[in-house]
Amino acid sequence: MTVSQTSERGHLRHLISLADLPRAEIERIIERASTYLTPTGQPPSHDATLRGRTVANLFFEPSTRTRASFELAAKRLSADVLNLDVSMSSRAKGETVLDTIYTLQAMQIDVFVVRDASTGVPARIAEHVAPHVCVLNAGESEVSHPTQGLLDVMTIQRHKGDVGALRVAIVGDIRHSRVARSAAEALTKLGVGELRLVGPTELLPEQTIANARVYTDLADGIADADVVMALRIQKERFAQLGDIPDPQEYYRRFGLSARALTHAKNDAIVMHPGPMNRGVEIDGSIADGPQSVIQEQVTNGLAVRMAVLALVHEHIAAETAQC
Amino acid sequence: MTVSQTSERGHLRHLISLADLPRAEIERIIERASTYLTPTGQPPSHDATLRGRTVANLFFEPSTRTRASFELAAKRLSADVLNLDVSMSSRAKGETVLDTIYTLQAMQIDVFVVRDASTGVPARIAEHVAPHVCVLNAGESEVSHPTQGLLDVMTIQRHKGDVGALRVAIVGDIRHSRVARSAAEALTKLGVGELRLVGPTELLPEQTIANARVYTDLADGIADADVVMALRIQKERFAQLGDIPDPQEYYRRFGLSARALTHAKNDAIVMHPGPMNRGVEIDGSIADGPQSVIQEQVTNGLAVRMAVLALVHEHIAAETAQC
Amino acid sequence: MTVSQTSERGHLRHLISLADLPRAEIERIIERASTYLTPTGQPPSHDATLRGRTVANLFFEPSTRTRASFELAAKRLSADVLNLDVSMSSRAKGETVLDTIYTLQAMQIDVFVVRDASTGVPARIAEHVAPHVCVLNAGESEVSHPTQGLLDVMTIQRHKGDVGALRVAIVGDIRHSRVARSAAEALTKLGVGELRLVGPTELLPEQTIANARVYTDLADGIADADVVMALRIQKERFAQLGDIPDPQEYYRRFGLSARALTHAKNDAIVMHPGPMNRGVEIDGSIADGPQSVIQEQVTNGLAVRMAVLALVHEHIAAETAQC
Repeated sequence: MTVSQTSERGHLRHLISLADLPRAEIERIIERASTYLTPTGQPPSHDATLRGRTVANLFFEPSTRTRASFELAAKRLSADVLNLDVSMSSRAKGETVLDTIYTLQAMQIDVFVVRDASTGVPARIAEHVAPHVCVLNAGESEVSHPTQGLLDVMTIQRHKGDVGALRVAIVGDIRHSRVARSAAEALTKLGVGELRLVGPTELLPEQTIANARVYTDLADGIADADVVMALRIQKERFAQLGDIPDPQEYYRRFGLSARALTHAKNDAIVMHPGPMNRGVEIDGSIADGPQSVIQEQVTNGLAVRMAVLALVHEHIAAETAQC
Repeated sequence: MTVSQTSERGHLRHLISLADLPRAEIERIIERASTYLTPTGQPPSHDATLRGRTVANLFFEPSTRTRASFELAAKRLSADVLNLDVSMSSRAKGETVLDTIYTLQAMQIDVFVVRDASTGVPARIAEHVAPHVCVLNAGESEVSHPTQGLLDVMTIQRHKGDVGALRVAIVGDIRHSRVARSAAEALTKLGVGELRLVGPTELLPEQTIANARVYTDLADGIADADVVMALRIQKERFAQLGDIPDPQEYYRRFGLSARALTHAKNDAIVMHPGPMNRGVEIDGSIADGPQSVIQEQVTNGLAVRMAVLALVHEHIAAETAQC
Repeated sequence: MTVSQTSERGHLRHLISLADLPRAEIERIIERASTYLTPTGQPPSHDATLRGRTVANLFFEPSTRTRASFELAAKRLSADVLNLDVSMSSRAKGETVLDTIYTLQAMQIDVFVVRDASTGVPARIAEHVAPHVCVLNAGESEVSHPTQGLLDVMTIQRHKGDVGALRVAIVGDIRHSRVARSAAEALTKLGVGELRLVGPTELLPEQTIANARVYTDLADGIADADVVMALRIQKERFAQLGDIPDPQEYYRRFGLSARALTHAKNDAIVMHPGPMNRGVEIDGSIADGPQSVIQEQVTNGLAVRMAVLALVHEHIAAETAQC
């Protein structure tokens, strides 16, 4: 990636990939995110940070949870929010992605939140926007989902403290998962004790990620783990898996059941990025059980997105003040 | 329904079904709704009741008018509003409805406005949300549409006063109508003088509703009525109706024409929940004529939704204050 | 058109067609629009003009850029905004357009922004709304797109001053273009020096527009032009064009390449309403080059829409004050 995610003044400007983000920046985002958490039941944090600014959610792939999370994050910071499901109009008309961006930028959009099924689109947009404009990657092909990685490490830290002493196991379809990749990048940056990738051979990455150890047996893979993160498995995958022909067999071999979870530490936390296939990659009783932090992941995700928006606003304000 | 619509403190908390709502609560909602009406042409009521709170419109069935009405009601009370057409994303991904709710709740949604084609979904959601969270039914299968029932009785009362002295006839496809069911429930709770259900045998309910009298002849059914409410008929129904093969024949037998309306009282009001099939269940001249209160129904509907949101906010505020 | 676009008090009330708008009104809108421009990088203009009012975007045809532009214009004036993609719900249910309007009007919508594929729909709506309600045409079939015409002349004036001394060439599919029609109307009202329509015979209008001269040769058509405006060509057109079977041949004959542009004046500006087909009606190097004002058109378009909303608000305020 040739685009820098931080400005010359040292502000966070874009969020494209955690692999290229300094550790201090990751820590700064999570620290800021913590300030947006409120006690359960209390009203969510609201402030005027982005009053008068415009955030565009540009989703070339459908999404409920991530789009909703970014939309609420922007609204709670008082931004004007524009939701664009571009697949249904301009792109069908043959306009290039960059022309869509140039057009929206000319409407004085300050932040683009971009999700796309192709690799490289968020970075390519970031390379071409005006100096004060910021680009946030909201999910990019199978390679990157940085706010997810940040919310995952934030959730782990809040339960388990410094990740340096932890054993973290990610279970499932690692190969096709931007969630796994961004979590692995964030954990590695923060010096995770041990990172394990667990799944059927066909779903493990061809080259391992971030010096992680790979396991094809669930019990071995999560043995003594402090954190177990299940990934969503797409139904389409079963056709490609030699000896796992259906969801039932997948559950038997890689599903997080109460029995499987006995291999992890007693106080291990269980994570899932959602949406869940209950009874496939995770048992419902585990998803709803005392070890599950799945809903906290969602809450932390919104706080992370508020933090990222508030931090890039420092760049926007600095750039526009000097004009 | 096992879920209570009022809280222990006596606040309105959910609005799922009028059948289970005390008469005093119905009257309280309508009274509050009246305070949101403004003279024609004047700006709509606006206040800060829901400032900082978030309302999610969760429509699993498409809708223009009800969604727009709830969205404007929430915005005019200064809420942040999230529109989710869930059919197009999460549900397609196989996530359960409750997991969608848990996820959104973790984003600190305070009120869920839910429309669904299946019976029981709003109540099921209400049973599972956090103590301060409220669920409003915006249309449930063929069984319940409580804000519609409330706006209908509000409209009748504003024109005709106490419903105890009134004869109200609902005409059309009663059997499949959540509108008819909720109107009948509200009218019965308020002690309607006489309730009549009028339509072809195949479209009358198998068991009558709320002690209503049933009629298969339009002239008999609306004779001396104070209020005549036409229901929308779906084109698909004609295939099931023995001697009414097409819209023309339906109009001849059950359409509210000027001639048919002579059987009702001279000052009878004419209602329709919309969207109308002009020339099928109602003649255009009647829909636009002096007896029609169809547009007032829409205006009152928005006021009812503001009232319900403002009342459940009292629950939310009480719950979150004590946390 | 029988509906008047200005009120008896002299306020702008509707914007349906530039052909029926007085020159002074066009100048007034553009002058107001200029006040909404801010220096590059600065935050967009925001004010409270439409606070408490509701603007509904009623798009019966899909659109990204125009809908986004109207939505942001309304939000930056503090209006509540309702986006309705009506093709997907009510219209499918058989409700008439006027019934949809009556319903929304009963929800106290103040301004309808309407795009429709049929001729006459915005004017027909304007004829039927309540006295204080305003209708803005956001694109009507192949006949009218008045805010586009306004933004085009505004852009020309800001670069070239009074249009009376200018030669303006519009190139491409004039026959099916509401953009060309509205630009021609605005330019003619403002007394353009010379207006030229350039394209293959099959794409020139059957009757010329506004005394424009027609050309079937690009070099002749743009010779010594001060302004060259390329129009988007739909792929479907090639089937109807005798000797232009494909985009490559169209580009060779009517594409704005660097070579073609040498025929225009050296300081000619190049315009395009978007979305562009790069390499078909315009070369990418021209679209991105120093003569291009394409992004300014977008910025001016948003300012024009803010101006129109602010001006019709004067009508709304006057009407509702006297109630």
